[in-house]
Amino acid sequence: MSERIANDKLRGKVMSPEGAAQFVNAGDKVGISGFTGAGYPKALPTAIAERAKAAHDKGDDFKIDLFTGASTAPDCDGVLAEANAINFRTPYQSDPSMRNSINAAQMKYADIHLSHSGMYMQQGFFGQLDVAIVEAVRITEEGHIIPSSAVGNNVEYLDAAQRIIIEVNSWQSEHLEGMHDIWRMPQLPNRIPVPITSPGQRIGSPWIDIDLDKVVAVVETNSPDRNAPFKPADEVSQKIASNFLDFLEGEVAAGRLSYDGYIMQSGVGNVPNAVMAGLLDSKFENIQAYTEVIQDGMVDLIDAGKMTVASATAFSLSPEYAERMNDQAEKYRDSIILRPQQISNHPEVIRRVGLIATNGMIEADIYGNINSTNVSGTRMMNGIGGSGDFTRNGYISSFISPSVAKDGAISAIVPFASHIDHTEHDVMVVITEYGYADLRGLTPRDRAKKMIAIAHPDYRPLLEEYYERANKGKFLHTPHDLPTAFSFHTNLADKGSMKG
Amino acid sequence: MSERIANDKLRGKVMSPEGAAQFVNAGDKVGISGFTGAGYPKALPTAIAERAKAAHDKGDDFKIDLFTGASTAPDCDGVLAEANAINFRTPYQSDPSMRNSINAAQMKYADIHLSHSGMYMQQGFFGQLDVAIVEAVRITEEGHIIPSSAVGNNVEYLDAAQRIIIEVNSWQSEHLEGMHDIWRMPQLPNRIPVPITSPGQRIGSPWIDIDLDKVVAVVETNSPDRNAPFKPADEVSQKIASNFLDFLEGEVAAGRLSYDGYIMQSGVGNVPNAVMAGLLDSKFENIQAYTEVIQDGMVDLIDAGKMTVASATAFSLSPEYAERMNDQAEKYRDSIILRPQQISNHPEVIRRVGLIATNGMIEADIYGNINSTNVSGTRMMNGIGGSGDFTRNGYISSFISPSVAKDGAISAIVPFASHIDHTEHDVMVVITEYGYADLRGLTPRDRAKKMIAIAHPDYRPLLEEYYERANKGKFLHTPHDLPTAFSFHTNLADKGSMKG
Repeated sequence: MSERIANDKLRGKVMSPEGAAQFVNAGDKVGISGFTGAGYPKALPTAIAERAKAAHDKGDDFKIDLFTGASTAPDCDGVLAEANAINFRTPYQSDPSMRNSINAAQMKYADIHLSHSGMYMQQGFFGQLDVAIVEAVRITEEGHIIPSSAVGNNVEYLDAAQRIIIEVNSWQSEHLEGMHDIWRMPQLPNRIPVPITSPGQRIGSPWIDIDLDKVVAVVETNSPDRNAPFKPADEVSQKIASNFLDFLEGEVAAGRLSYDGYIMQSGVGNVPNAVMAGLLDSKFENIQAYTEVIQDGMVDLIDAGKMTVASATAFSLSPEYAERMNDQAEKYRDSIILRPQQISNHPEVIRRVGLIATNGMIEADIYGNINSTNVSGTRMMNGIGGSGDFTRNGYISSFISPSVAKDGAISAIVPFASHIDHTEHDVMVVITEYGYADLRGLTPRDRAKKMIAIAHPDYRPLLEEYYERANKGKFLHTPHDLPTAFSFHTNLADKGSMKG
Repeated sequence: MSERIANDKLRGKVMSPEGAAQFVNAGDKVGISGFTGAGYPKALPTAIAERAKAAHDKGDDFKIDLFTGASTAPDCDGVLAEANAINFRTPYQSDPSMRNSINAAQMKYADIHLSHSGMYMQQGFFGQLDVAIVEAVRITEEGHIIPSSAVGNNVEYLDAAQRIIIEVNSWQSEHLEGMHDIWRMPQLPNRIPVPITSPGQRIGSPWIDIDLDKVVAVVETNSPDRNAPFKPADEVSQKIASNFLDFLEGEVAAGRLSYDGYIMQSGVGNVPNAVMAGLLDSKFENIQAYTEVIQDGMVDLIDAGKMTVASATAFSLSPEYAERMNDQAEKYRDSIILRPQQISNHPEVIRRVGLIATNGMIEADIYGNINSTNVSGTRMMNGIGGSGDFTRNGYISSFISPSVAKDGAISAIVPFASHIDHTEHDVMVVITEYGYADLRGLTPRDRAKKMIAIAHPDYRPLLEEYYERANKGKFLHTPHDLPTAFSFHTNLADKGSMKG
């Protein structure tokens, strides 16, 4: 048995995944670790999926409600979705099989702000949690859990669950110990300020204390996280990154930012990684990150001495960088902090530290409303994730996207966003390869001009036509022509291109 | 000269409104006091409007950019709009003349969260403020300002402005002194937690300290606030109030609320007042309010011993109640606190105290997205006000509205909201006279069933028809039929009724 299980009582609970899965019953509400492919349980999901398939083969029902930190992996969300083992899922996912089930209305999915998801569990909005399944690097002598490569909603689920299953994964570096900062907000009506005033501050313990009597099983694993490689930055990504840096330089010139004061939040993806690569050669120094995931680009910035500290709730690294993190966790834990997602994404702290939020999008409309979730208003991609937490409360909020997708058939700028996740009241800057639209303090009419200017040239005349038609209406504060507001989307559906 | 001006230096600055208006130039950015018809300057707006009219008569330009706390009154927003004296206006208004100018695109209007408006000024997003014009109850010997019936963005504008004009209004009770709680958040990068953990806590001073060298004029006035009477609650309002109380009772039954733990936020209007009247006869005790305006119903709750404390940034009272407040301010200042709107509406404090947010709306769609601002997507009514501050961060967020307007020609529940100010991610409960839709933790499909059930019976079949048509699409997570998504609104435009 692994020396990583140092507590005697819990050593007595070690069993096979199949044995542990017997504690997960049909109809259970199950809260698991896992955030963007890091730190999810590696063995139980498959074992639960097998139980479900066996039950289904006998004609019995077997579905669970699954609560996570965020997205997981094919060997977690994927196997459970394929086994048709999930009734309800929240707060975020990005798995292809799961997405198909959701869009076929075969699985219920509630798309919730990541900072709210654990809190809703605490507040009783989801009912009683039955089981928590959490991956750990190690169990201490006292029975405390050292989380692995993600903290997510572990604390909330471990506190709320009636039964606990722990997976101890020896693939994860033991030197992650000391990187986590676990702090619990007292429950209503006793909430207090989160005592963080700068991204690098530690306020809690490096472990999670749990009720040992609730632990029904401990399972040993040795499996890697789901780490996907990033594509090298293409020309469009590099132009977007360059426009983003121009915007930052403009803020410095205007006296609203200093080269020594940039606090970064960044969504995941190739464009954000291009932005971080651009920062390597920029004048910005002592960059800090208060964000939800640590990406390759942040590791590079730390290595180059450009970033002093990165606070997040999880890793989202390429296989190469994940290996490096595992080898050198002892070094990186001086400059990386992993917190519960309720804290990494807490509106209070986000507003206080004054970060610049940068997230991707599906589309924006000419008035600056953003769709982050549903393609053409109906097809769920992943979910809102933490984009709302950071957009709403950041010092400056920005969205970055190529101006077109699918070889030009889809414009990222449309007359009316077909789903709205971030409203005109919250969106400050939108950036494409054609420039940036700084919408701060502007009226809808003035926003439209700026937004059309950063659309792809092929779409600018179509957007201008729409705006002119909208201006023939009676009310001109937010001009719209509702009968043709979704014409880009109906063109796409009918003719295969938003151009019609 | 009034004894209310106790500072010698400022006594030397007393002059006529016309004299003071000479310090306001064409093109100036002007920040004024005033929030929901309380505490706005009474003399300068008319004097500025007269200057503008005189300039216009000579063929000269004369417009200012006007920043307030929120809405003001006919003798402020009204006279300035009628004189065509405003170029740009933010963050909220409700004046009929101003609304017409905005919707005719003759005046620029930026609709901004009330908690963000003063902060944007501090952060330099609006450029340099030229003049602050602030109503006071009194100027102390040291030259501190005792604000009147609203605090609003006074602190931010007084700090930012190059020139200050003070109106000392002897209509306002001197006993308001002691009711205000003025606290400044240190500027980035030195922000700290707001040290409020319960609604009744005082953290600052009862006065605003200013740079006396910036004061260019002091004007004496004796004019009432704009206080509008409330209509007595009609049958529909009473049913909505009763459904809201049923919801609260359900939360108590579920263990998520106690009769001794209700913290109220309430938008302004007749339905909220009916809710407060309902609370008078309820089992709820020791109610607290952490809200933006003090309304008649809260005064009744305080008088009845049902409410222990109300924290807000301004009054919004009927003439009768305003008179009572002026007569008995000394008594009420034990249980009423007026704060800067950045604090009354601060996301951090709202989330911490755990309030239940209750606001009106123009329309909601079947998935729970809310339109608070633009009728049929294009006609600006007032603005988002503080509804986003409270909805996003409240323990529970709720919206209340009659199910129909204009004798049934307009449904408050529509297939697709024609403007979205609050997204599905933030909206928890929607209440009409037909019941409440508790949307917490539900998927879009399950939300649609609940929302259609609280629509007016005349509109339920039309909404069901839409939902069935939407379900013929390919993607069923958020079913929509985009070509007919705005059919209710186009029916209204073409045929005078959403029924078509």
